[in-house]
Amino acid sequence: MKAARYYGTEDIRVDDIPEPEVRPGTVKIAPAWTGICGSDLHVYFGGPVSPMPTEGNPHPLSGEEPPLVFGHEFSGTVEEVGDGVEGLAPGDSVVVEPLLVCGECFACREGRYNICAKLGFIGLSGGGGGMSEHIVVERRFVHPVGDLPLDQAALIEPLSVSAHAVRLAGAGEGDVALVGGAGPIGLFTAAVLKALGATVIVSEMSGQRKQKAKDTGVADHVLDPGQEDVAARAMEITGGKGVDVAFECAGVQPVLDTLLHALKVGGRLQVVALYGQNPTLDAMSLLFKEIEIQGSMGYADDHPAVIRMVQEGRIDLAPFITRRIAVEDLATEGMRRLVDHKDEEVKILVHM
Amino acid sequence: MKAARYYGTEDIRVDDIPEPEVRPGTVKIAPAWTGICGSDLHVYFGGPVSPMPTEGNPHPLSGEEPPLVFGHEFSGTVEEVGDGVEGLAPGDSVVVEPLLVCGECFACREGRYNICAKLGFIGLSGGGGGMSEHIVVERRFVHPVGDLPLDQAALIEPLSVSAHAVRLAGAGEGDVALVGGAGPIGLFTAAVLKALGATVIVSEMSGQRKQKAKDTGVADHVLDPGQEDVAARAMEITGGKGVDVAFECAGVQPVLDTLLHALKVGGRLQVVALYGQNPTLDAMSLLFKEIEIQGSMGYADDHPAVIRMVQEGRIDLAPFITRRIAVEDLATEGMRRLVDHKDEEVKILVHM
Repeated sequence: MKAARYYGTEDIRVDDIPEPEVRPGTVKIAPAWTGICGSDLHVYFGGPVSPMPTEGNPHPLSGEEPPLVFGHEFSGTVEEVGDGVEGLAPGDSVVVEPLLVCGECFACREGRYNICAKLGFIGLSGGGGGMSEHIVVERRFVHPVGDLPLDQAALIEPLSVSAHAVRLAGAGEGDVALVGGAGPIGLFTAAVLKALGATVIVSEMSGQRKQKAKDTGVADHVLDPGQEDVAARAMEITGGKGVDVAFECAGVQPVLDTLLHALKVGGRLQVVALYGQNPTLDAMSLLFKEIEIQGSMGYADDHPAVIRMVQEGRIDLAPFITRRIAVEDLATEGMRRLVDHKDEEVKILVHM
Repeated sequence: MKAARYYGTEDIRVDDIPEPEVRPGTVKIAPAWTGICGSDLHVYFGGPVSPMPTEGNPHPLSGEEPPLVFGHEFSGTVEEVGDGVEGLAPGDSVVVEPLLVCGECFACREGRYNICAKLGFIGLSGGGGGMSEHIVVERRFVHPVGDLPLDQAALIEPLSVSAHAVRLAGAGEGDVALVGGAGPIGLFTAAVLKALGATVIVSEMSGQRKQKAKDTGVADHVLDPGQEDVAARAMEITGGKGVDVAFECAGVQPVLDTLLHALKVGGRLQVVALYGQNPTLDAMSLLFKEIEIQGSMGYADDHPAVIRMVQEGRIDLAPFITRRIAVEDLATEGMRRLVDHKDEEVKILVHM
């Protein structure tokens, strides 16, 4: 079968590899659409990052090393179900929670398998990926999406990253939330918050991203840190109290600082973004406002609630799909374009 | 009356100032013993820090600027009670929760007055201090200590800082807690954790402080980061899981890093120490372990529980008092000694 495989920096090739076979407890899926994620860009241009295996260092759970089938944000159609699989049948539209977990560590035993000690991602750490004609996945990680269009369904994965962060933060109705950064994860975080009834403030400098936050209706207020004091404006909006909760979706120092200043005393900061460089922490805000900061990693059984939210029409995913390309154009029309036109694109979807 | 007043860097003078008079709703106290705190050292050798007023910039609540009566960790005896004061009578032994709060801001209205927008400290920001012959304090901030000796009672204030941090962290029985640093606040934090039934690991490099952590019985394990890998040892002690909760009581980068590495996935880090310089945050630990970090500031109605804990004999404060001096010797036998012999001393108490 055809599959796009990651060999290393700026080297993804469409190879012909053996087709995987269904096993008991697994589901064979024909991927339909695969989104390109910020992490994909990082590893494409910057080389493998943890928890990816490297040559000679296979991933502990998949046993694989590069080349690795690529793509973890994908939807598809069930082709075959293994013995013992219930609730799914050939022809069903599904999405995959693309995780490799040990099932034995402390986190797994507590149900927080997204922070498994041996965590890996399908599409980055082995176990196949979305950019292939077929993939076989454990039943527990396959979620049916009903009649949701398969292109929109490919966005369930990044939306689940945001929903997980919002759930950890305990944010929802009645809260005023500040989202730092309106890239894909920032927009999805705003969308989840809005769907839950929060008042949403988005802070973003890029004109195109600001426009996207406005056009999609995910933000009640869109502020520009290049033109106004975001923390001061957040104080105004909240009558001097500060925002209840903030989401760091940019991964840069000035955003982190701004969010800490905009938070109310006793407020909560959820860090969703990965940082290229460890940030400096404003200890005075942390202490004198007793702020709580928590990191957020992926998702753990957040997909079903997110799928329902979209099925009920509380989030419209269509406006976030900005381009559809063939896998053969991944390098030029996918990776390169997301760098050169990063403010214009939200989600580029790839099909085989 | 005689009072030690802070004028600026290395300048505290014993002055003769007017005696304060009791007002309705207040209590007049004759301070007995006043402890010297790490913050006192900072401002003595380094100059005023927020929320202290400076010349020409009076504190918004006290209206005072330097010279300021010094000392916030104090015990004393009630001399007189103002109109409307209940539950206290002349002769009672008491301690003071030495806060200046506005009572109107969002934090105050939520009962979290320790993070009041205008927060000040008696003994640092005006409103008198422990190093004087008399002080008048609002009733709400005066806590009776029964027959607890007044020298030990002076330690209720720093113990409340620790108890507040432990309460915010939700730590207690069944938890394995790692305390970074065995200075006074580290030792008190360990003492509170131990009293609540936690297993306590203390990490400390100084031989004398390690010995103090052992001698006082507040630690189940005392580890030395200069001689062993504290995070690895914490993993061993917890059977590979990591500690449930950690307390940053040192205010230095390597301790923060070690605690993040020693924490279990989903663990909690409570930052109690002030940092001379903003630390760098290990974002990978924060994210891949979904760690929660919270700052902790002072106390808010933590004194009564702490006083009970000491009265019930669950914490023995006597071993933490290492010296008693007269106010006239504050500079040499107090401030200077705490710098030159910092590992040997825990709490030095001053009397008028």
